[in-house]
Parts: sequence; C-alpha cells; structure tokens
Amino acid sequence: MKVKHLNITENMTISEFITQLDESGVLGAGRIAHATNLLADSMKDPETKIFLSLAGPMVPGGLRKVVRDLVKNGYVDLIISSGANLTHDLVESFGGRHYAGLHEDDESLQDSGIGRIGDIYTKSEDFEVFEEEIHKIFAKINEKYNSISIQKFLYEIGLLIEDDESIIKTAASNNVPIFAPGLIDCMIGLQLWIYCQDHDFTISAVEDMAYLSDFVYNSKNVTACMLGGGLPKHYTLASNILTGGIDAGIQITLDRSEGGSLSGAPLEEAKSWAKAKKGSNLVTVVGDATVLFPLIVAGALDKIK
Amino acid sequence: MKVKHLNITENMTISEFITQLDESGVLGAGRIAHATNLLADSMKDPETKIFLSLAGPMVPGGLRKVVRDLVKNGYVDLIISSGANLTHDLVESFGGRHYAGLHEDDESLQDSGIGRIGDIYTKSEDFEVFEEEIHKIFAKINEKYNSISIQKFLYEIGLLIEDDESIIKTAASNNVPIFAPGLIDCMIGLQLWIYCQDHDFTISAVEDMAYLSDFVYNSKNVTACMLGGGLPKHYTLASNILTGGIDAGIQITLDRSEGGSLSGAPLEEAKSWAKAKKGSNLVTVVGDATVLFPLIVAGALDKIK
Amino acid sequence: MKVKHLNITENMTISEFITQLDESGVLGAGRIAHATNLLADSMKDPETKIFLSLAGPMVPGGLRKVVRDLVKNGYVDLIISSGANLTHDLVESFGGRHYAGLHEDDESLQDSGIGRIGDIYTKSEDFEVFEEEIHKIFAKINEKYNSISIQKFLYEIGLLIEDDESIIKTAASNNVPIFAPGLIDCMIGLQLWIYCQDHDFTISAVEDMAYLSDFVYNSKNVTACMLGGGLPKHYTLASNILTGGIDAGIQITLDRSEGGSLSGAPLEEAKSWAKAKKGSNLVTVVGDATVLFPLIVAGALDKIK
Amino acid sequence: MKVKHLNITENMTISEFITQLDESGVLGAGRIAHATNLLADSMKDPETKIFLSLAGPMVPGGLRKVVRDLVKNGYVDLIISSGANLTHDLVESFGGRHYAGLHEDDESLQDSGIGRIGDIYTKSEDFEVFEEEIHKIFAKINEKYNSISIQKFLYEIGLLIEDDESIIKTAASNNVPIFAPGLIDCMIGLQLWIYCQDHDFTISAVEDMAYLSDFVYNSKNVTACMLGGGLPKHYTLASNILTGGIDAGIQITLDRSEGGSLSGAPLEEAKSWAKAKKGSNLVTVVGDATVLFPLIVAGALDKIK
Repeated sequence: MKVKHLNITENMTISEFITQLDESGVLGAGRIAHATNLLADSMKDPETKIFLSLAGPMVPGGLRKVVRDLVKNGYVDLIISSGANLTHDLVESFGGRHYAGLHEDDESLQDSGIGRIGDIYTKSEDFEVFEEEIHKIFAKINEKYNSISIQKFLYEIGLLIEDDESIIKTAASNNVPIFAPGLIDCMIGLQLWIYCQDHDFTISAVEDMAYLSDFVYNSKNVTACMLGGGLPKHYTLASNILTGGIDAGIQITLDRSEGGSLSGAPLEEAKSWAKAKKGSNLVTVVGDATVLFPLIVAGALDKIK
Repeated sequence: MKVKHLNITENMTISEFITQLDESGVLGAGRIAHATNLLADSMKDPETKIFLSLAGPMVPGGLRKVVRDLVKNGYVDLIISSGANLTHDLVESFGGRHYAGLHEDDESLQDSGIGRIGDIYTKSEDFEVFEEEIHKIFAKINEKYNSISIQKFLYEIGLLIEDDESIIKTAASNNVPIFAPGLIDCMIGLQLWIYCQDHDFTISAVEDMAYLSDFVYNSKNVTACMLGGGLPKHYTLASNILTGGIDAGIQITLDRSEGGSLSGAPLEEAKSWAKAKKGSNLVTVVGDATVLFPLIVAGALDKIK
Repeated sequence: MKVKHLNITENMTISEFITQLDESGVLGAGRIAHATNLLADSMKDPETKIFLSLAGPMVPGGLRKVVRDLVKNGYVDLIISSGANLTHDLVESFGGRHYAGLHEDDESLQDSGIGRIGDIYTKSEDFEVFEEEIHKIFAKINEKYNSISIQKFLYEIGLLIEDDESIIKTAASNNVPIFAPGLIDCMIGLQLWIYCQDHDFTISAVEDMAYLSDFVYNSKNVTACMLGGGLPKHYTLASNILTGGIDAGIQITLDRSEGGSLSGAPLEEAKSWAKAKKGSNLVTVVGDATVLFPLIVAGALDKIK
Repeated sequence: MKVKHLNITENMTISEFITQLDESGVLGAGRIAHATNLLADSMKDPETKIFLSLAGPMVPGGLRKVVRDLVKNGYVDLIISSGANLTHDLVESFGGRHYAGLHEDDESLQDSGIGRIGDIYTKSEDFEVFEEEIHKIFAKINEKYNSISIQKFLYEIGLLIEDDESIIKTAASNNVPIFAPGLIDCMIGLQLWIYCQDHDFTISAVEDMAYLSDFVYNSKNVTACMLGGGLPKHYTLASNILTGGIDAGIQITLDRSEGGSLSGAPLEEAKSWAKAKKGSNLVTVVGDATVLFPLIVAGALDKIK
C-alpha cells in the first residue's frame, strides 16, 4: 500500500482528518486510524462489550465528560479505574474543580494548600468539602450494609450523588459496573479507613471477582480500551484470562517497553499470557491519552452514525 | 563547580566508579551519585526508616536477592509492592524460575504456556505448582484467621514458606512489614478469590492503614526508595501525608512526566501535596531500575562500611 | 482558570476540537492549543517570518503535501531540513513512492531491496531511478556553476524538476530558501560525491551563512516551528543568535530532556544561549509530529481565515 | 537459560558487577552485558575497526577523557562527531570549562552570559577565548591550505593545539580520523564562516567521502559504537553501506522508535538498508550514555586485559 500524503485544508472535520491519517497509514497516523476504526467497530457491534480502563489523570485532565458521555450513550460496558480518577470525579460532584495556569513552585503550592498534577492544580478547600460529603455517603451506605464489595460500594455512591456529569453516577444509572481494585489507595480509601475506625463497615475487593468473572463469561467479545497503564490495565487484561483473553485492545500511553513494566508493554505481550486471544486485534497508540482518546472517540462517533 | 571528566581505568571498583560520577556531577552521573549518597546516608542513620516500593518486574528482572539482602541486613524497614512481585517471589520459593533467551512470537508462547515480561519468560507448570502450594498456605492461615489484613496475611505467608531467598519470608523473619494494596490484582489474589468461594476467609486492605499510619508516626525520618511508579509509588507517598511527607526520596523510572501520570511525575510534585516535606532531599534517576538500583546499592554499601 | 472538560460530539470540526483542547488548557491539550494559537498568530502577522525545521521522517511519514502547501500559500518563509527529507521529496518527484503494510523482518527486507523507516518502506528500484535523475540534474547545474552553496544548489534543483507536489520545487518557485547543513549525509550527498569525483564541481555549506544571516537580520520577528530535533533544530536556533534569538518557537518531539541532547531539550534552554529572546513565546508539544503537526496546522488554518 | 538474581555485595568491582548483569541476562542488565562483551571482543580483535559516533553532550557531560583515552590506547579507529562535541573539546583546550550546580532560570542565565545544556553550564568568557584562539588556528591552517576537507581540517587543528587531554589532538597524534559532516552547525563553523568572509579559505564535506570510503573498504570488520543518534549515527551507518553494512553495533540512547526518527530506531532497522550486515551483532542500550558508556567501557577494559 502506498503512503498517501495528508491533505490538510480549511474547515476540516475530525472525520476528514482521521480519513487522512488512515490513508497515510504509517507511524502515529496509522496507529490512530487503526484505533479509531477498531473503537467504531466495537461500538457498533451489539455482541462486543467495551471495557474502559482509566489510569493517570484522566478526570483532572479533562476527560470526565468524554467518559461520562460514552457511558451514558451505551458505548462503555465496564470501567476499571484508579481510585484517584473516582476521587476527582466526586470532588467535582461536590462542587470542587481542577485548575490551570498557576506557575508557583511546589513548596509555595504546599503553603497555599494547592496540589499539583503536572500543570493541573487542586485546592485543599475542595478536598475538605469532599471529606465532609463522602462521610455522609458512607453513613448512608452503612445503613444498608456492614460489608460490601468495592464495585457495589461505588454503585451505591453513584445512586446517592446528584451530579449528572459524574462518571460514577452515570455509570450507576446505566448499570455500568466500575471496578477499582486499588480503591484503598486514594482519598476515598483514606476517608473510608477513617470512617471504618469507629463504624462497623468493611469493603472487600475479593468479592468483586465473582461479578467480574460472570460479566466476562457473558461477554461474547471484549474490546479493552486502556488509557494509561498501571493496575487498571493489568486488572482489565487479567480479568479476561478466564475466557482466553480479550478479542481486541487499544492502549494509549507515553510509557515505553524496555524496562519491562506492564504499563509500557506492547499489547502483543498479553497474547503470551492468554490475556489477549491469538489473532486478537491490538493497537498501541503512543502519546498523551487526554488528547488522543478524545480525537479517536470523535472519529469513532462519526463512523458509527 | 567544575565538571570533572570521568577517568575510567582497568580494575575499577563500583565505589571508584560512583566517585567518578559524583565528580562529574551532571546529567545521569549527577543523579546516580546523588541517589547513592542519599541512600548511604539513610542506611547509616538509625533515625531514618527506609520505605522501598516495588513496581514493574523487579523480582522477575533479577532484583529478588538485592531486595532480600537489604531486608536481611536491616537496610529496608518497610516494603510496598505490587502483587506481581510477591507472586513471582513465591513462584521461585515453590521451585519455579524465570527464563531468558527465548525468541518466539507471543502466539507461539501462548501455545507453549509461556508468559512473557519483556524478554523474561515464565512457565505455566511453575504457576501450576504455585497454585497448589498457595492453596495449602491459605488453608493453614485460614485455620488461625477468618479475616485478616493484607499485611498480616503476607506476614503469615512468610512464616510458612521455607525458602531463605524469599523476600516475603525474609521480611517476616525480620519484622519488615510488606504492604500490597493491590494484592487482589495478581495470581495470589486470583487464587485467593477461588479459595474464598468455598471457605470462610476474607482479607482487608483497609485494616492495614492503622498499622501503616502508626509505623509512619513512629518514624523520625522516612526515606522513600521507589522502583517504578504505579500504585506502590502512590501508596508510599500518600502514607506519609500523615506526618507532612517524606524527608527524602529516590525514584528510578523510565516513565516521563508530560502525560501527568504519577508514575512519571517528578518527586518535586509530591511537595505540593505535602507527601514530601518542604526542603526534602529528592532525586529522580531516569533509567532501568533493574540495573541502576543494584549499582546504587553497591555504591551505598561501600560508603557505609 | 478552571479546567473545562472536553465535550466530544458527532460531526465535530478540527476547529471545534482545538477549541475544546484550549478550554481544557492542561497537559497535552493545553500545549496543542498553545501551539495552534501561536502558529495562527504567526501566519497572520506580515511582520513575522516562519522558519520550519524538518528532522525525522516527515516526508516519508506523510507530511510532504502539508509542508508543500504551507510553502505554496506563503505560510513558511524558510526551511531547514535534514538531507533525508529532501532526498525523499525527490524520490517521489522522480516517480518513487513510500509504502506501508509490509511485515517482513529486516534481513528479508534487505534481500528484497526494501529499506525500512519504522513501518514505512522504500524500494531500491525507486532509488535507482533517483540516482539516474539526480545525476542529470547535477550535470545541468554544473553547466552553470563549478562551486555553489547548498541553499543555492537546492534552489537550482527546484527549478529543474517538474513535480508541483515537490517541496523543493515549490520552495524554489516561491523563493523560500531551503538550508540543509548536513546535506552531505544523505543519498543526494552520496551521489554528489560520486558526481564530483570526475567533475569540476563543489558545494559549500559555509557560503550559506551570509544569506541566512541576512535573512535573519531582515526578519522583524521569527517564529521557529521545529519538527523533530537534530541538526535542523540546532541550526534553526543557532542562526537566530545574531539577532538575540527567536521571538517564538514551537517544537514537536518524542525525545526527552534528561540525557541533555538538544533534540529533547525544552525550548526554554534556548533562552540561556540567546537563541530565544527573553519573554519569547515557546511551547513544546510531546508526541508524534506526523500526527500533531497536521492537527495544529488544520487548527491554525481555521483561525486565520 | 534461567535468570540468576543479582548478588550485590560490598567491595564489588565493575567486572564483578557486569558478570552479575550477564548472569541475569534480561532487560537492561542483559543489554549492558551484551554491549560490554561485544565492545571487549571488538577491542581485542586486530581485524576489527571501532567507529565511535558522538551526538548529544558527551564532552560537556564528562566523557571527554573516556573518549580521549580510548583513542590514545588504540581502541577507537575512527570518530564521527557532532560539531558541538568538537567545539566543547576545544573550549577546554583553550582553558574553558563546563560547570555544574547552578540553578537560575534561563532568562537570568542569558543575562549572566551562561549557556545551559540540561544541568551543565558554560560561560561566555570561555567562548570569547575560544573565538580568539580558533581564529589564530584558522590563520595557521590557511597558510598551508586555501581549500581543505573537514576531516583534514580537524586533523590540522589537532596538530596545532597543545592540550594532551584534547580528543582532537589525541586523535591527530594517533592518526584516528575525525569526521564531522555537520561541522558548520557549531561554534567552530560559525567562526569559520566569519573567518572565510575576509580570507581565501574554504572547507568541503564532500571531499571526506573518498577517505572515509577507503577507510571502510580497508576495514575487515567494523563495530560501530554510537552514543546518541542524529547525524553522527546516520553518517556512521551510511558510510558502511559501501561494504554491505557494519558487522556489529552498539547504540546507547534515550530516544524511542515510534516517531520513526533514526535516532530512536532499533539497530535492526539498519539491516534492511544494508547498513548492517545480515547476522550482524547488534544491541541497543536504553539509558543515559554519559553513565552507561563509561560503565560498559570499564567492564570491557577488564575483559581484555
């Protein structure tokens, strides 16, 4: 196939841009076109379940609405998230925000009670509100349960918050389960521990495995869409071992492979572990997921309409 | 300060090599020398507790003995690990190994029951032995406990295995606690789930927080040594919020910062969150931890003798 | 400023997408929006000259038409390129192409006379035609000159080829000078050496400096747009030392800074050398230039119309 | 082959450390051991010529003496360098130095006349001395030549300077040719242009090709040792096309491959172009060359004694 040079003009649509990338077909252009086509095909196919994993600052980085809309419109069937992205979703549901454009050094930020994530900033007062509100929610859930699985716990939180923009609420309303095996390692987890110290309440990660494995067994095809690596990527792939691996996978990451970490590992490697099926359709896009995932989603939305 | 050019000769010792890097003082040389001096000072100081976090294939990648020896010799006070590194530690305790030098594609590896981690290979028969043995251990622990925290659970495992080379056993024998908040996301976790389905047994991550926070409160100074990023890095830093942050930190990683993920974040960022104290001594070494950590440890051992 | 979450919908235009990135304002989104606004402002301003540097496989990777159109439409005033991009431009002018979708190993490719650049492939027969044609061009230029500067040499080549899609021809027709200080290190250079062995013909890089410095002196403002790093990035920045540095700069690269190489260096570093003015508007976009530059150009074209 | 865990002890020698890496054999450890063995074998073999390419801040970064000693001891047969590394070699020969430990922002550095390379600093007064001295040298060479090739020009410079620590002088004294096809793009080139404006003097890159190709033809085996990428890496590989490619190659870089740039390309790719022979022994080490090259050299020196 000949590489066609991109033809960039005024008034281009995302759809026309992706077509140009597709016709080029090489380097990042080829990978993004591949990912877009794969995501669109998966969104169109009623037999395919889309698992979305969220690691890195996807919510602070501006993808909250992208993820929420995919869930609301039935394009994501299951979410595996870091605790942090769920914490930041709730911070906004409770009235907090994320901020840009500060340029102080980190010691001054500490004095001002401002936490930094790259060039994203958070305010301690937003976290104080978060703490107050989350404890009220713990109490309400504790009225119904003394022990609960992490997924069910997040579902209950989703039912209790009012913010329609929330990923957690939208997922609950649309029966899209959210798994967060590392939930303890975030502000929700920290507050949960404080709450548990003087209340009869425990959450369990082990319990989720039954529901997750049933979900995997009942999925004819699984396309895993992995933003960032870490525990969410690993858990997403590992949960599919039960059925011989995912049928298709997209990962978007800046991590590299030479250190051997799973986060930077090429998806092909998952085949050796039967976490991806032989012949599965896999693509790794190298870059910043907070830009490239929206681009791919926009392209896929146009392909399926 | 003038950059001194490295003088590389025959029969150099690691100690002489690190001195050369120190006298150069720039780029990677400066960072490695900084990390070595910081680690040595922390090892020497009875008032300083060293927290070691393990993400990425540190055990499969050849660091099992390095970590075990640091624990055995009292140079590591607390470990925060990914579940995978603990699984691979046990795989070897049960007679399994890790392998190099295969060059098949991932689909053939799947057929041969060989899992790949970069250029490291594992055999399914080793995992079968692992499954058998770990269930026996679950049963023994279940005789004493119906509910247990992850840290205590790993401690009990350590008491029950016989392999002196094991990190888990050596940590147990030396009362070095191991935390693994994401334990559920590894083969130990998977087998645990299978075990729990027909046994009255649960583990809890939340319970560990009390012990961990006490440990942090009782540490006059904390130096965090972070190999790779992910949940272990985050948990290590977050656990020190309670006392205003770590006093010193070393991270070795190939991840980069522009995507905003914690794994690639400069340690300075932790200051804004009070996960590192103002004025704390922080250094990021960019490279492969399975090579650079042993180099730094070798250099530090020579400095403290 | 609050981070606004991206709103991704059907039928989006590039312009709407860039606006979303701009309103997010953080991580890659903020950098791409910054670069797009800066490029648009520079394109609009008659007082600003845009220097474009090309390193890495920009022509093989699908950007030939993007660069050619920018030149044709008067949006690029000066090009500094690696020899390779110019060779590949001529390969296509002489009827050759670049290819995608092969998946042989490199030893088989050698047997098939196919050169690989990532996942881009070239054919030896295309290079054979290139050799024939370029020698005819050398002879024609040699009729007029025995000694010529690299820039003037490339200009003469541009006048002699017929392909309107060629960057070199379009630049010549539009009086946009192309500098290639490393020209000797490419197929043009290799053939040139062969030609020079039995012809009285020499080219000189030194001679270009006079023209380049005059060009810089006569540019009220310079915005440097640097795709990839290497010698083209260095030469672009260095040429502006004469006037105290560039006024604005955009670089798009996957290289990182810790090794100290100029290719991965943040543009801020150029300020210390007076290769960028104090207060100059500088932005580094981390990612694949063959995707992100077209995105930025498409966004800029919409802003200036 | 089983992965042997590293055994790190007090008083280790570099040689013992490399042996440990070799017995691990995976990830970075395996790559560094491979590179060390390959370099040692090449140093021992009288039939093998070692080509060393220098891109990135190898001289400012502390490798000046390492390179100079390799040349002096007959372990390097040919050098291909960026202009910058040669400029910085001369800056030190004329009494200048490189500095560490400054922490001003780049605008203040500009005011202080201090140029930054990562965390390495240079002083404008050192460059002023450089300019004075290099013009004297130009004049002396101009007494003998009106036109000269870059390699011969660097050789003549080497004969005229007195600093025994100089790479350029040591290379000249040992008849090790230095090629710098991009010489014009550095301070030597800039001063050369200024000198040439009022003197009858020209240098030519094309002329070097005859000598270089003869050198390649007369080399039974070539091992290319490439520090960093860029034009020096490309020129090193391209010069060996004439004989079907290098027989062995080591590259040390932090660049990655996905963008398609040669700097980050795996050496295997060179096989497709016949820049590396089929079956050639190639290894890419990922990391900071200013640390890993000295480590590899130290290991190799011990292996060959």
